[in-house]
Amino acid sequence: MNAFLGLAEQAMARLDRLAEHSELPDGLTRRFLSPEHRAVADLVAGWMRDAGMTAAMDAAGNVVGRTEGAVPGGPALIIGSHLDTVRDAGKYDGMLGVISGIACVQALRDKGERPPFAIEVVGFGDEEGVRFQSTLLGSRALAGDFDPAMLRATDRDGVDLRQAFLDFGLDPDAIPAIARAPEDVLAYVELHIEQGPVLEDEGLGVGTVTAIASMARFTVYAEGVAGHAGTVPMRLRHDALAAAAECALMVERRAKAAPGLVGTVGRFKVSPGATNVIPGAVEFNIDLRAPTDADRHALVDAVLADVAAIAERRGVALDCHKTIDEPACQCAPWIMDQIDAAIAATGGRPFRLASGAGHDAAAMARITDVGMIFVRCRDGISHNPLEQITVQDAAAGIATLSSFIRHFEPRP
Amino acid sequence: MNAFLGLAEQAMARLDRLAEHSELPDGLTRRFLSPEHRAVADLVAGWMRDAGMTAAMDAAGNVVGRTEGAVPGGPALIIGSHLDTVRDAGKYDGMLGVISGIACVQALRDKGERPPFAIEVVGFGDEEGVRFQSTLLGSRALAGDFDPAMLRATDRDGVDLRQAFLDFGLDPDAIPAIARAPEDVLAYVELHIEQGPVLEDEGLGVGTVTAIASMARFTVYAEGVAGHAGTVPMRLRHDALAAAAECALMVERRAKAAPGLVGTVGRFKVSPGATNVIPGAVEFNIDLRAPTDADRHALVDAVLADVAAIAERRGVALDCHKTIDEPACQCAPWIMDQIDAAIAATGGRPFRLASGAGHDAAAMARITDVGMIFVRCRDGISHNPLEQITVQDAAAGIATLSSFIRHFEPRP
Repeated sequence: MNAFLGLAEQAMARLDRLAEHSELPDGLTRRFLSPEHRAVADLVAGWMRDAGMTAAMDAAGNVVGRTEGAVPGGPALIIGSHLDTVRDAGKYDGMLGVISGIACVQALRDKGERPPFAIEVVGFGDEEGVRFQSTLLGSRALAGDFDPAMLRATDRDGVDLRQAFLDFGLDPDAIPAIARAPEDVLAYVELHIEQGPVLEDEGLGVGTVTAIASMARFTVYAEGVAGHAGTVPMRLRHDALAAAAECALMVERRAKAAPGLVGTVGRFKVSPGATNVIPGAVEFNIDLRAPTDADRHALVDAVLADVAAIAERRGVALDCHKTIDEPACQCAPWIMDQIDAAIAATGGRPFRLASGAGHDAAAMARITDVGMIFVRCRDGISHNPLEQITVQDAAAGIATLSSFIRHFEPRP
Repeated sequence: MNAFLGLAEQAMARLDRLAEHSELPDGLTRRFLSPEHRAVADLVAGWMRDAGMTAAMDAAGNVVGRTEGAVPGGPALIIGSHLDTVRDAGKYDGMLGVISGIACVQALRDKGERPPFAIEVVGFGDEEGVRFQSTLLGSRALAGDFDPAMLRATDRDGVDLRQAFLDFGLDPDAIPAIARAPEDVLAYVELHIEQGPVLEDEGLGVGTVTAIASMARFTVYAEGVAGHAGTVPMRLRHDALAAAAECALMVERRAKAAPGLVGTVGRFKVSPGATNVIPGAVEFNIDLRAPTDADRHALVDAVLADVAAIAERRGVALDCHKTIDEPACQCAPWIMDQIDAAIAATGGRPFRLASGAGHDAAAMARITDVGMIFVRCRDGISHNPLEQITVQDAAAGIATLSSFIRHFEPRP
């Protein structure tokens, strides 16, 4: 473990450097295909090369580093996570996994070890989907699951994704070609902060993830009738904000109805959005997560039925567009076993837990078996500037990932 | 009446020209101290001069035109309304009153008539308060009720009002000096679209306003705890958006509880505002109106008590800042009588109605007796691009205002 403290200190310093690249002066916000995305991609590629890897950006905006195994061009163990952030984010969510992967490759090089298989470290450009509501775009593209229709999605400034790729110097028509064939990938493993309170409760620095919760997301367009806040009697109103507010409270109530469910309305865009005008339109999002696919289906059905009833009663159109419908993603038992062994080998107590958050691993599961290592974060806080980990836990994470890689046995 | 159809056609054309000056390409949005404010102020000042008035912008951003009576510098009958708009506005709300005032002065000049009293036409720069939440700023300044603390208010780009005045070429420290002495003002009369459905129901083009409803407005800062939408259990959340949504529905419920009350939440600013983040903060506004001051006080008390209860139950701070607390404004009976007479003299049926919307007249009532003429608008729609009036109703409004001015007898 102590051998990894130096690498962990370097990793923490690098995470601080990445966090300097924010679109907003206060806090950390780094969206896909922004100048800040470019800046951190350049930094990460440089660190990959310092660790002895080749490194380049692919057509989907992912930074990909690679070190060959015994047979050049042979199948690779892919270690990855993402470099984009939510608005006003923490500096570990995503970035820790990329930086830890690079640290592990550097550790191998420092020891003069060369595993028989290739290792790739990937910094995905778009996992959070903040700019284009395009969650997991980077890992989906690598897994051959990129939907070209997504190129018509627009950001809040009206720039569409195709144009954003072109402005960034990338060819969106080349994205399908970055898809990996299953036979070229041995496994995908992702190290990530837990973003929840379980490891802290257990007094553990790292844990083995069993599954990623299933998730459904909707963009809802509420359309009522705008009017003067002083002159339209209450009984004649079709207030889009009131309808959206009722939906938000309904989502909360439905998610509270059974353990393990969560439901969130995180975005609310009101038009015209002035104090003295009855809102004519609201665009908002519903995010629903459930431990199993059956739970997700039941929750989605209940929420959509309630939305329809609210629309009917209020005379406000509520059009729901499903943007994500992710089944639960099971981690491969053979990978979980090897992660457990790596935790034990580095002096930890193997412990398994589920992930309530979505991760790139869920997209990569389309083409390969996946596993995840969680690292404890303070108070379970994430997607927040208060997100924090200790350098000791970073060292435990890097040590675990490093041991996992050194003893990695591909699926028989 | 027919004599005024030509003036009404000119007025409608001028209103179309003003509507070309919008900050946004689609729809009409013209905020205080914007380049578009400057553009319409220049147009209006030019039309004032064409009608034989002197015209200039005062330190508060109001365009003021004046034509002298028998005694130069003598007390004036002030005709006014505003030139700013809500977001995605109609083109008559406010502007119709200014353009009609100019048309009446032009009609006097065309007839070679010169009343014994001075006439001023004022185009107030800020009535809606969209940019700085500073409703009635222009008329308050003219009435000597400008609060210098307001200069610290900021717009959504972080520009404060003081800086916005300076950038516009105006000296904010000169605003107090534009206040009119009561002895210099004979009365304030405002022509405005009704923004409600009453005149249309009655089949009337114009009506005499009896009073302006009382109003209270609050900006509410909801502060909870941001977190990851997938990993924070429902029972541990302090979701600022859910708290704000509950407030919005409570306002709706309270306003529905008695006839004549209206309550609106028109603005909702969510932070950080991403699909997969539990909102940590929401800033929103509550707008409450009631026919009497007693009704307003009761409504405000009930709403604030409910907000406190919601905050307590959810563990979300809800800080309410009162931004407006306007008592009901009674129109002067002697002015109402003269407006009724003007309606009758131009072939109409005198009809009296209350205003649910606030108007500059409410601020001017601080220093003088006020009256208002309402003009019918289609379907009662306002604060909306569908706002519409007929050229016949515009002619009726100008004819009424013109007759009122020609026969105006100051309060004995």
